[in-house]
Amino acid sequence: MDLTRSPLALPFPDMPAIGGVTLRIARAHYKNWDRADLTYIELAPGTCVAGVFTRSACPSTEVEMGREQVKAGRARALVVNAGNANAFTGYRGREAVEQIMAQVADHLGCNAQEVFVSSTGVIGVPLPKDKAKAGITAVLDCAPCSWEDAATTIATTDTFAKGATASAVVGGKRVEISAIVKGSGMIAPDMATMLGYIFTDAAITPEFLQSLLAASNAQTFSCITVDSDTSTSDTVLAFATGTAGNAPLANVDDPGADAFAAALHDVCRQLAHLVVRDGEGAQKFIEIRVTGASSDESAHRIGLSIANSPLVKTAVAGEDANWGRVVMAVGKAGEPADRDRLSIGFGGTWAARDGQPLADYDEAPVAAHLKGQEITIEVDIGLGQGRATVWTCDLTHGYIDINADYRS
Amino acid sequence: MDLTRSPLALPFPDMPAIGGVTLRIARAHYKNWDRADLTYIELAPGTCVAGVFTRSACPSTEVEMGREQVKAGRARALVVNAGNANAFTGYRGREAVEQIMAQVADHLGCNAQEVFVSSTGVIGVPLPKDKAKAGITAVLDCAPCSWEDAATTIATTDTFAKGATASAVVGGKRVEISAIVKGSGMIAPDMATMLGYIFTDAAITPEFLQSLLAASNAQTFSCITVDSDTSTSDTVLAFATGTAGNAPLANVDDPGADAFAAALHDVCRQLAHLVVRDGEGAQKFIEIRVTGASSDESAHRIGLSIANSPLVKTAVAGEDANWGRVVMAVGKAGEPADRDRLSIGFGGTWAARDGQPLADYDEAPVAAHLKGQEITIEVDIGLGQGRATVWTCDLTHGYIDINADYRS
Repeated sequence: MDLTRSPLALPFPDMPAIGGVTLRIARAHYKNWDRADLTYIELAPGTCVAGVFTRSACPSTEVEMGREQVKAGRARALVVNAGNANAFTGYRGREAVEQIMAQVADHLGCNAQEVFVSSTGVIGVPLPKDKAKAGITAVLDCAPCSWEDAATTIATTDTFAKGATASAVVGGKRVEISAIVKGSGMIAPDMATMLGYIFTDAAITPEFLQSLLAASNAQTFSCITVDSDTSTSDTVLAFATGTAGNAPLANVDDPGADAFAAALHDVCRQLAHLVVRDGEGAQKFIEIRVTGASSDESAHRIGLSIANSPLVKTAVAGEDANWGRVVMAVGKAGEPADRDRLSIGFGGTWAARDGQPLADYDEAPVAAHLKGQEITIEVDIGLGQGRATVWTCDLTHGYIDINADYRS
Repeated sequence: MDLTRSPLALPFPDMPAIGGVTLRIARAHYKNWDRADLTYIELAPGTCVAGVFTRSACPSTEVEMGREQVKAGRARALVVNAGNANAFTGYRGREAVEQIMAQVADHLGCNAQEVFVSSTGVIGVPLPKDKAKAGITAVLDCAPCSWEDAATTIATTDTFAKGATASAVVGGKRVEISAIVKGSGMIAPDMATMLGYIFTDAAITPEFLQSLLAASNAQTFSCITVDSDTSTSDTVLAFATGTAGNAPLANVDDPGADAFAAALHDVCRQLAHLVVRDGEGAQKFIEIRVTGASSDESAHRIGLSIANSPLVKTAVAGEDANWGRVVMAVGKAGEPADRDRLSIGFGGTWAARDGQPLADYDEAPVAAHLKGQEITIEVDIGLGQGRATVWTCDLTHGYIDINADYRS
């Protein structure tokens, strides 16, 4: 399949190396692709790990195992297979993952539980053990590669490589965060439908890292949707090697904890937005701001109802300020709403106020706004103080092109 | 907009006239359409009425008023405006509806509360009172028309006229049911996103008619979805003129009540299927049968999760037996499921059993099935006895064509 680069793509950022993190890629030939498809990331002894995973009731073996592994809080390596999700493959899929973990653990002289594995691609085909074994053998002999190479290798239907970086000063020491992500389709909240990997040289306890990651996830990955479809394989892992030399962060009152949390949140938001910017077929990036809901949770659900509405998304694709469809999406959200208090705007211009079209509504600035690539939809429910922001993309012919013939 | 006829269209059936029901159509010029857009249906004195309405939190004035009117159980006329939904139009929209009710009530010498009004089309534009008044004046002078003319006139983006009929013998008397429906986009359960009108000459109390309609609705209109978007204007009304001369039906134990209920259910199912067959852009009609769920309600929600998945719908459009996407949709439904007990089939052929691809899976019959127009997806959850069937259509370029530029 020939995928053209998303018009919303951003250049790959200049990302600093992270002490204690070494990246390598190789070809395992999982698919008939003329590119590397196996990413191996080695982590210094003592690296802490935290993770958030899909809430799908039918997760992949990798998700089930990863969820158990993060409880111990320690990691020495990450392996990402692209082209095969190894989901819904029963005991054969599990055997392939255990083989990879054992092979890497043997190489590093570590516990197999410290080796994390992710797989992404087609569901229902067991990961071939022979190809995985040869791929791991090959990758251990490869020279280190760049962040952009690794970001390219973990991708599947993505049209551009995605990375994000931020830094913070913690107790007088500068700590860096570099992160990569893949995701384009089967993107919906709960958490978000993608693979994301965040690396930092900060010293931090796994428990505190987990609490910061979970908090950022709720405001970033859980606030994006491309197509309302939730993957079986969603995973975001954060690894902290501790090589920056800061006094280890253990709770919110530690010096620099706020700065680190802000940097982590910034990276998560960047990654989440990059996934939306590469939403399958996306031509426009849409931010939906909901205010005046009965609670923040209610605002979040109303925002997602709008973001997941095919009729709202096709209206934006058609550059049509069809706020009636926004009313419809508020109405179907199953949340408190009062038609006669509802206000809707686009790009800072109100089109309807208190349940009626504005008498002096000037559609010209709205029409101009909708011709751009960055669209904002404002919705005020008029009931309370609840607010939330979610992000999505428009729904275009490109989505149909990509998904009506992905597997073959 | 030039809409080609759905490939899944069915011919308009030969429908009997219903004693006490007279149909008329006229042009109110609500839109710049070269066709009739106002339907007026007069009902004999003594006609009973029952109704089910959208559960949208932002319904139209017509829905709010109709919900109150059915409580009295009596109807003398139905007016349907096409081209303008009159939803989200505040007091001006309500004034237009009240004007129509008063004008018709004055003509018939009945209570205004016995005049039902529906409107369908663009949201957010108040129904113009002058056009409505002239339209009603004109339609009262028109000669009666056919069911097909009325079905054509209530339609908006529909590509074919939709009607259904059934009959039953009640206490030795034959009773007839004739019904029309419109709907093509903004179709999702809760109840269903459409306007449907059912007419019978049976004598039946409004309370019993309401209970039968609600029961049929749960198994028919509430089991279809085109695009997961729920309209602000959904309405299904059932009118019973009582001219058949049967002993009035008042509860399930009355002679013929079973036969009448079965006929009513059959008409509702036919209407619901017709809406799916005219789903915007639909090329294939999809039946999803869920068995083995923990309850019937759970099976229903799992079925709708599959039916609303853009990835499942595009896979069917691409004639791709991508059962991995069905696994994904089961997993995201938020219902009890166990990946290792899940089985998935297409057109009677199992592709996966108990969480794994079948070792001897022969894709040939599945591929042949997917090339047809009537697709069946079977899902067995493997947990209990709950079962449900839902219906949807595929997601194609046609949906994007229709919805990226509907309003203009």
